[in-house]
Amino acid sequence: MDNQRQPSDPYILTGRNPIREALKNGRDLEKLMVQRGELSGSAREIVSMAKEKKIMVQVVDKSRLDEIAPQHQGLIAFASAYQYSTVESMLSLAAERNEPPFLILLDGITDPHNLGAVIRTAECAGAHGVIVPLHRSVGLTPAAVKASAGAVEYMKVARVSNLNQCIEELKKRNIWVYAVTMNGVDYRKVRFQGGTALVVGAEGEGISLLTEKKCDERISLPLKGKIDSLNASVAAGIMMYAVMNQRGE
Amino acid sequence: MDNQRQPSDPYILTGRNPIREALKNGRDLEKLMVQRGELSGSAREIVSMAKEKKIMVQVVDKSRLDEIAPQHQGLIAFASAYQYSTVESMLSLAAERNEPPFLILLDGITDPHNLGAVIRTAECAGAHGVIVPLHRSVGLTPAAVKASAGAVEYMKVARVSNLNQCIEELKKRNIWVYAVTMNGVDYRKVRFQGGTALVVGAEGEGISLLTEKKCDERISLPLKGKIDSLNASVAAGIMMYAVMNQRGE
Repeated sequence: MDNQRQPSDPYILTGRNPIREALKNGRDLEKLMVQRGELSGSAREIVSMAKEKKIMVQVVDKSRLDEIAPQHQGLIAFASAYQYSTVESMLSLAAERNEPPFLILLDGITDPHNLGAVIRTAECAGAHGVIVPLHRSVGLTPAAVKASAGAVEYMKVARVSNLNQCIEELKKRNIWVYAVTMNGVDYRKVRFQGGTALVVGAEGEGISLLTEKKCDERISLPLKGKIDSLNASVAAGIMMYAVMNQRGE
Repeated sequence: MDNQRQPSDPYILTGRNPIREALKNGRDLEKLMVQRGELSGSAREIVSMAKEKKIMVQVVDKSRLDEIAPQHQGLIAFASAYQYSTVESMLSLAAERNEPPFLILLDGITDPHNLGAVIRTAECAGAHGVIVPLHRSVGLTPAAVKASAGAVEYMKVARVSNLNQCIEELKKRNIWVYAVTMNGVDYRKVRFQGGTALVVGAEGEGISLLTEKKCDERISLPLKGKIDSLNASVAAGIMMYAVMNQRGE
């Protein structure tokens, strides 16, 4: 989430009515900020609508809201800069194109430049979608959309509330799920056949242990130097092109 | 170059004596900002020292200097966040390791995140150095060094005043220079043998025409989608791993 936004930012919604309308109309939100303290009935209603839609609700001090926008009425919503798609729609697209599904799952990527670059590479490598978790990850914020350099227009991005459950569902659909990690099989020895999902973790922390365990196989990029990891979007890019190259033209 | 720095930033040098000493001691600078208007003798001396060392000198209004640091005496220098190496030293390293040289040249990359990611990937892919031009490109600013995630410690970065001349010199050393462009040969058909230099251009603009002409060969990443380019550091990463993979272990 970008901080330091201007109140004139079109992705910042303030006031109860605009936020309620956005939620009713199914507009995607990245986050709802709520003022700490007792909530009025209408604010409570908005918070429960947001929770129902699995939107992250963050309780903050009034001063934080004041910083972002002056007339907030205790609530500020950050709208997504692009509409999310669904995993189902990605799988339908793959079927339509008569291609085995090719998906990228991101675990804990918080840098919007990385998300944007992954969406962009996914589009260039012929993937069907990029999946991000709802929590502890950056979504389609204005910065991420900008970094995608227009690729969000052509690449589906879905947000899921539970990445592990999503992986289970992909496995049931005969999609082979690869965790891109440090100590896996050299990616050059992997035959990416059929439905493929690549799970890429955050820099530093990598993929969470539970998520890594859910995956079918761990794969790694060889590292010839002294540092032990690549930038997440670069690692994802090299892996995506490896998948694409094995799929042929 | 990062703006909005704090005056307490250790990479901002103000005052004539500190800047003169830094220049005398051979400390690398990214840029020297000089107040518009008539210069005193000592300021003129510093400017000519900087020009001799081919450091970018930028003439700005006093108000710009005031914004950055209060007591500037008409001069502010931005120190590099890491010491530069030389192309010669990269070639010596390759010879020491008994490897054909493997270099990355960046043309017009201005985003420090991209430079940092390229340095990081170069280190992981076993390259011998990253070369950046002195002008219209980001150098080893604090943001670039941070984005390299520690890789500047192990990867040589050189700054050259003329990229085309540098390419000519590499060619004389039997290094094959590839321009990573849009309409080149599919990189999967390229045999990267012997000394290899990859020239990667800025996003959007790509490599300058003159530089592209200096290169031995144009190579491209296939793009299966609708958008027409990858993020520069992702494109560089895929190409570097292609070179590394052909070099074997």
